[in-house]
This record gives sequence, C-alpha cells and structure tokens, in this order.
Amino acid sequence: MGRLSQRRRVRKFVLGSEYPVRDKEDVLAVEEPLEIRLAGTARTFSYSVTMRTPGDDFDLVAGFLVSEGVVWEPGQIIAERFCGGEDEEGRQTFNVVQAQLRPDVVMPETGRAVYTSSSCGICGTDSIESVRRSGHYSPADDGVRLLPELVAGLPARLREAQGLFDKTGGVHAAGLFRVGDGGTSAELLCLREDVGRHNAVDKVVGWALRSGALPLSETVLQVSGRASFELVQKAAMAGIPVLAAVSAPSSLAVELAEETGITLIGFSRGAGFNVYAGHERLLS
Amino acid sequence: MGRLSQRRRVRKFVLGSEYPVRDKEDVLAVEEPLEIRLAGTARTFSYSVTMRTPGDDFDLVAGFLVSEGVVWEPGQIIAERFCGGEDEEGRQTFNVVQAQLRPDVVMPETGRAVYTSSSCGICGTDSIESVRRSGHYSPADDGVRLLPELVAGLPARLREAQGLFDKTGGVHAAGLFRVGDGGTSAELLCLREDVGRHNAVDKVVGWALRSGALPLSETVLQVSGRASFELVQKAAMAGIPVLAAVSAPSSLAVELAEETGITLIGFSRGAGFNVYAGHERLLS
Repeated sequence: MGRLSQRRRVRKFVLGSEYPVRDKEDVLAVEEPLEIRLAGTARTFSYSVTMRTPGDDFDLVAGFLVSEGVVWEPGQIIAERFCGGEDEEGRQTFNVVQAQLRPDVVMPETGRAVYTSSSCGICGTDSIESVRRSGHYSPADDGVRLLPELVAGLPARLREAQGLFDKTGGVHAAGLFRVGDGGTSAELLCLREDVGRHNAVDKVVGWALRSGALPLSETVLQVSGRASFELVQKAAMAGIPVLAAVSAPSSLAVELAEETGITLIGFSRGAGFNVYAGHERLLS
Repeated sequence: MGRLSQRRRVRKFVLGSEYPVRDKEDVLAVEEPLEIRLAGTARTFSYSVTMRTPGDDFDLVAGFLVSEGVVWEPGQIIAERFCGGEDEEGRQTFNVVQAQLRPDVVMPETGRAVYTSSSCGICGTDSIESVRRSGHYSPADDGVRLLPELVAGLPARLREAQGLFDKTGGVHAAGLFRVGDGGTSAELLCLREDVGRHNAVDKVVGWALRSGALPLSETVLQVSGRASFELVQKAAMAGIPVLAAVSAPSSLAVELAEETGITLIGFSRGAGFNVYAGHERLLS
C-alpha cells in the first residue's frame, strides 16, 4: 500500500545547531478525496465526499453508512466496488466507491444528514435525539466491566500498533479492543489509521459490519486525540459501550454518551484518566 | 460568554496514588451545531451545518463563505442575523445564522461544494484545481520574508494567548500574525479557539473579511495540530502567504501549498520546524 505514505524533500530548521538549515527526506501521510456513491433500485447518487488516507476504503464506506444510520447488518450492502475514473496519467484513481444497497434499505436523502428540526431550528438536544432515533443497537444494555489498570494501558497499546504514525507522525488512530476475563484483559481486534480521526473510526466500524461483528458488545474503542460528538455518535451506532480518548471530550460528546449509555473516558495518558459518563463500568 | 465552556462532575482515576478515585469538577469546551443559511433574492436555503464552539458566529459564517469561494469582499454579505429558534426551555438557541448575500453574488448550489469532476471521478488534482479556480487572491505574489527565529516562536505565543485551552485542554486555536520590520517581528492580529480547527480558522478569516482586511498579505497563520488540505484551502482563499502548524501536514496539503504559492511549515515546536513548500520566504 504505497498510497498510504509519500516521500517528500523538506527543508529542516534546527535553531542554534551547528547546521541550522538542512534538506532531508520526510514521509507524509497521504490525504486524498473519497467520493461515496449509493446505488439503490431507483437511483444512484453521490452521497458524500471525505478527505481520507487511502486503504480499507470499503470498510470506510460501510462504517460511514453505519454511523449515518443507513445500514446496520452486513447484508444491507449487497456489493461495494471502485468506480472507473483515471487521473491525468491514465491511472485508476480508486477514489470513488459505489455501495449497492439491498432494495429494502431506506435510501437517505441526497447528501449527508444534517441535524435540523423544525421545532427549535437546531440545537444540541436535536443532535442527540437524531442519534437516538436512528440507532439500532443499545450500548446502555452492555454489562461489560473494566479494571482501571486495563483502561490506562490502552493508549500505549494503540501507539505501539500504529505503523503509519511511526513513519509520518501525522495520522490519527482508532483501535477496537475486546474485553475478556471479567474486565482484566483486552484483545486488539482491529486498528486503523487515517488523517481524519472520524475516518479511522468508520474504518473500524465498517470492518466490524463486514465481519458480522455488530453490535460491538464488550468492546472498548480507544482513539487518539479528542472525543467529539461525532465520535460518540459513531460508537453509539455500532453498539460500542466504552469510548476512550487520549485528550479532552466536548460538552456535547459527554451529553450524548450519557443519553446513549456509553462510558466516555478522556485524558487517558497512562498514569490515569477521567470518566465523564458511565463510570459504573469501572471496577474498583 | 458562558456558552464557551461548561462545568461537569467527573470521576478521576489516578493509578497508584493514595486516593486512586476521586470526583471533581472539570471544565469542558462547549460543542453545539451551527446551521448556516444563505438568503439571496430568489431563495433562502440551508447551506451547511457545522459542530462548533459558540461565539464569533458571524465571523465563522463569513469565513466559511470565503473558504468556499462564495464571497471575498465585505460588501458581498449584506447582513447576518441569528434566526429564531428556541430550545425546550424556551431559550433562543443562537444556533442558526442567516447570511443575506448581495444580489450579484452567485449563490452556490444547495449544500457544500464537493470536489467532483467528470474527467477522473475525483482525485487530489481535481481538489487542487477547484481551489485554484475559485480563488480570488494570490498568496504566491506575496513577497513577505521571515526570520526562522520568528517562526519558531509563534506556537508559544499562540499557546500563551489561548484562554479557553487553559480551562479545558480541549480546543484548537488559529492565530493570525502580521509580519513587520523586514520579517523580524510579528503582531498577533486575531486569535480564535474552537473544538474544530477548521472553525477556528474560519473565525479568523471571517474577522478579516468583516474588518476589510482581505487579502491577508504579509501574515502568518499559526494553527495548533496538523495541517490538512482543508486548512491550506482556507489560507489560499484568504490570501494568507504562510501557514504554520504544530504537527504534521498531509501529502495533499503540501501539494496545494506548492500550487498556490503558500509557504507551509510543519512540526513547529520551539526549537525548530520543517518547511514543506515555499522555503524561499525564510531568511537565512
């Protein structure tokens, strides 16, 4: 997968050193647009465009459709394929994926769902209601329990398994862990890296859909960076009961976690972490 | 502006300490949806929804419209106002902004522009071409020069000026600096913080549009985090000649910077930095 990273000549400035300016090779994470097309019985249309790191694109599309509430079982996507399309040198771009949906799947409106409502224009409560309405799994019912030491060790395990970050220093990661042995151990099921954190999560969720592993009971999703509303939404739609982030959550992320029964962990950095919602899942 | 941050009770785990579990108050960065409506002579429609930290919303909308190539002069937006809309407790949500555009402004298609083209489906080259076509300013012509020591000092100056980050640890920042004295000094013109890095940049660009300061010649935009295609796009559309990020750029960010004549700096962390494009602006 040479499309994941790219070599580039850069000029490096190191102040106060003997050679303060030098040219060297650097490795960049690749970012390319991906167009997602949906095909139903009546019509085919362009649903969304996302900037992503190429690779695992069928998983990305499948996971995105789970996140948006369009599908929740593997059979609802009959097939995925790359559409034709060539760049100026005649090479296939592999930047358009078409998902053929089963005839009974309700096709979304053209373009991505936006969280509007006639009642109050738009507000956080609407956004939360929209996720609740479109969810097919209930993370709240998941009885998984976790040893605090286990949770604290996940960021290091995520970091160790990140191949692209080592090369580029420029990608986010999402790692899905299955909890076992009464909350004392966890197995890494799937790790994905991407320039967009939301894409890394969609790739994990799509992998799970296509493996027949939804809902993702008794799992923890560990992500690099912060926890936004969007990430909690993706966890909720996949039935993931615990979301842990290395950095801060937003206000709306915490509210959505509370409403959907997700345990939301932030500032998880080895020595400890904060639990913003659902702390009953932590063993003491 | 009590809507920028929110207090929450959290359960804090500190492994190996005398009191490994304690409950405390934490401050979260607020995240709320903002709906952007455009009003022209013929029609009014919902253009986009973004998750953002409330505050400077008129700037955010104005900057977003500059980034999308819809406007580039202050007079093209006749007025901005909050639309009515109440939450369940009857309070105005302030989450819908309507921008009234001058009659000669070409209204965009419904929904955000996606970088598609019939020629090759979609690819990075198209995305770059799309920015070049819609740009009204040329960062390439900007003759600004910069002392490396000046560049290296900007992240610390950004960090010092960040009020919300100190409280929450959970927001991105964008700071616009005007370069003076032949590249040896810089004045902070505008700093904005937001849960979304792209929003922080749009708020800065919108402030500049509404202040009549576009194009932003002889400026550096310093951002926290990474540099994606989208951030370089926003810099290009505002005529910003230098974009500096604390972390890594993506491949497409570097390509777009090269094509639009922007100096792109990454991994800027005090002791040094990498220049990925346009290193001729660095004084030696």
